[in-house]
Amino acid sequence: MKQVVQAVKGTRDFYPEEMAFRRWLYAKIQQVSERFGYQEFDGPIIEYIDLYSDKTSEEILKDQAFSLQDRDGRTILLRPEITPTFARMVAQKSGSLIKPIRWYSYGRGYRYEQPQKGRGREFFQWEINILGPETPEADAEIIAIAVHFFKELNLTPEEVVIKVNDRGLLEQTIEENKIPAEKFTTLLRLIDRKEKIGPIQFNQTLKEEGLDQKQIDGLNSYLSSKDYTKSDWLSKVFKCLEKYPGVMDYIEFDPTIARGFDYYTRTVFEAWDRSGGLRRSLFGGGRFDNLTETLGGERIPGVGMAPGDMPIEEILKQFKKIPDLKPETAKVLVTVFNAELMENSLAVASLLRSKNINTELWLEDSKLDKQLKYADQKGIPYAIIIGPDEATQDKVVLKDLTKQSQESLTLEEIIPILL
Amino acid sequence: MKQVVQAVKGTRDFYPEEMAFRRWLYAKIQQVSERFGYQEFDGPIIEYIDLYSDKTSEEILKDQAFSLQDRDGRTILLRPEITPTFARMVAQKSGSLIKPIRWYSYGRGYRYEQPQKGRGREFFQWEINILGPETPEADAEIIAIAVHFFKELNLTPEEVVIKVNDRGLLEQTIEENKIPAEKFTTLLRLIDRKEKIGPIQFNQTLKEEGLDQKQIDGLNSYLSSKDYTKSDWLSKVFKCLEKYPGVMDYIEFDPTIARGFDYYTRTVFEAWDRSGGLRRSLFGGGRFDNLTETLGGERIPGVGMAPGDMPIEEILKQFKKIPDLKPETAKVLVTVFNAELMENSLAVASLLRSKNINTELWLEDSKLDKQLKYADQKGIPYAIIIGPDEATQDKVVLKDLTKQSQESLTLEEIIPILL
Repeated sequence: MKQVVQAVKGTRDFYPEEMAFRRWLYAKIQQVSERFGYQEFDGPIIEYIDLYSDKTSEEILKDQAFSLQDRDGRTILLRPEITPTFARMVAQKSGSLIKPIRWYSYGRGYRYEQPQKGRGREFFQWEINILGPETPEADAEIIAIAVHFFKELNLTPEEVVIKVNDRGLLEQTIEENKIPAEKFTTLLRLIDRKEKIGPIQFNQTLKEEGLDQKQIDGLNSYLSSKDYTKSDWLSKVFKCLEKYPGVMDYIEFDPTIARGFDYYTRTVFEAWDRSGGLRRSLFGGGRFDNLTETLGGERIPGVGMAPGDMPIEEILKQFKKIPDLKPETAKVLVTVFNAELMENSLAVASLLRSKNINTELWLEDSKLDKQLKYADQKGIPYAIIIGPDEATQDKVVLKDLTKQSQESLTLEEIIPILL
Repeated sequence: MKQVVQAVKGTRDFYPEEMAFRRWLYAKIQQVSERFGYQEFDGPIIEYIDLYSDKTSEEILKDQAFSLQDRDGRTILLRPEITPTFARMVAQKSGSLIKPIRWYSYGRGYRYEQPQKGRGREFFQWEINILGPETPEADAEIIAIAVHFFKELNLTPEEVVIKVNDRGLLEQTIEENKIPAEKFTTLLRLIDRKEKIGPIQFNQTLKEEGLDQKQIDGLNSYLSSKDYTKSDWLSKVFKCLEKYPGVMDYIEFDPTIARGFDYYTRTVFEAWDRSGGLRRSLFGGGRFDNLTETLGGERIPGVGMAPGDMPIEEILKQFKKIPDLKPETAKVLVTVFNAELMENSLAVASLLRSKNINTELWLEDSKLDKQLKYADQKGIPYAIIIGPDEATQDKVVLKDLTKQSQESLTLEEIIPILL
């Protein structure tokens, strides 16, 4: 026997069972987004590399993107994230769009990373942004949406936390410690990786970057502080979050939160699971005031976040919060008694469908037992049998497969039962 | 001003307005599929090229696929169609899957073709297949689903038609005319292109392929016949289709229907718009009995079809069948009277959301006129105003933007209005 052709490494197949979860999660995302008045959009999955240059970290572009050449020699990427596509779409129509722009999307993204628990090369991402208001209230709304999402998923403040920071605080620290301003991006990345590399290598790298001991101490002192009041902006964001019932339980100030993307300005945040099972953040977000402008559009400040489906699924599994989901089945299987009576079964199936009843029809001349076993295995709740007697009496046998009971009824009688 | 970065040629942006149509079409597809008991699945958008070799026409693979190399030197394609992914998924689990397998999917596909009306390089495709029964009844079900879909889209038999054929008839013709059997695939492709190249070039190419005049006449005589009764199989398919109410009005026998994919066996069909506006088929389908086997799995005969969204949208536009679709908006905009009263507005918005009312909150200190104009432009039906008087009286002003009326009410009073 031949080897079955394999799927691409790091991709997933969604059989109806996995699709049931994907549909459930997508419905939650739609519900939460629309509860706050956001409208669904989507863009292409492929984009020219120009869209990402200077906006996405070089690491992601060079090492982690799926790229191809088109026939004009231009480089196309499978989108590693959706935010630049969102910003491009806004930039292209910014004059005619009503502001504030509240949009969300749920689509695929691609990263050429080593697949592991909660991380694949092809994933789904929820992108939700508000563009227009340059206010702490807008930042608070996005963070409140993240918490609302956790609540909808039945995740508690004991299980997950959102760590919030202001990049402006790091800028202040750099200035106060007389660290050259051009070190900002390098330090951001380094802080983003501090947890991973540990304090010794962190300090060592700072030294290699030319920081003296006093500067290193100053930076570390900032990174261990618990006081966000040096940032007026963040103080206002927190004040606003306190007005959302039950939201602050999920929120912490964390000066080490930096985020990898260059386009973030001011507020940045990351969601973490408190158990530390994933060893990295669940997702992140932040304010990006200049992104549409750097893409050639007018400046429209914005804030948003981009949770991926795989860490969310992982965390839900870990905390046993995935409900018992089954793929949708038909309400009834219309069986076929024998080849001669096939057309009677077909007529009944057509009638039920015309009454908006989801109906499967058996399409072969098989033993009745096999047909009923199929309905049972698949979880179809009812079966209809039309034998020679029923056919002459204009009746059908309706079998309730859950109760294991059956009745001989007219079609008019079964429709209300199946509806 | 900088040039705005452009989208990749042949891709589409789905702003909320376009997304409203996409959601509407997807909901129709889900409804029709599930009405017949099909379950939703999905696979990756990227697949190794091995999946397509020998199954997809070489033309599509070489000239029309987006391809890239992974870091192990393997060629990956952006899927040009979903059927091979479906067959791979079935082949990989065929032992454990309950049969018949009735699955559908709605996802993206990619072809590197010249974009034109109703054709893009990135499109959506509805894939719907039944695997298991090797019966004319199964073929009839898929064709009936296509008709059911047309009816759901309000497309009439005067506007669209499904042309059905049996590849076995061509095999018979080849045998009867003593044409070498190995010419089958070449002739299939040629017949598929006959409409495009015209009868003179068609006959000329047949001559170049080594057919003599008698053979060419025999082939042309078959291609102009209206009689499907030489195919027992097709006769049974038609007999079965007659049992579906109102389906035969949409059906025609057409011996020139061949389809480009090598994997089709027996029944093949194409949907066309009768106006000829698109100059090519809307979509096609057919029986593929050996596909899972050629991918290394057990042999599970099947039949299915794969309508794309772009020709469907085009035909709906042409026949003016697209309903007046608007993006979902919030039910109410909670305005902000001034900065001090922001927190009152925020509290009201939170309360409404907790009652499952989709609620937008204004997030800046702006003139009330601007806020109300925004709600009106966006089509939000209600606005809430909380001024200093309302704040002290624990009331809000509810403005009905459609009727241009307003009332001062308590929160308990407005909830039932907004629900």
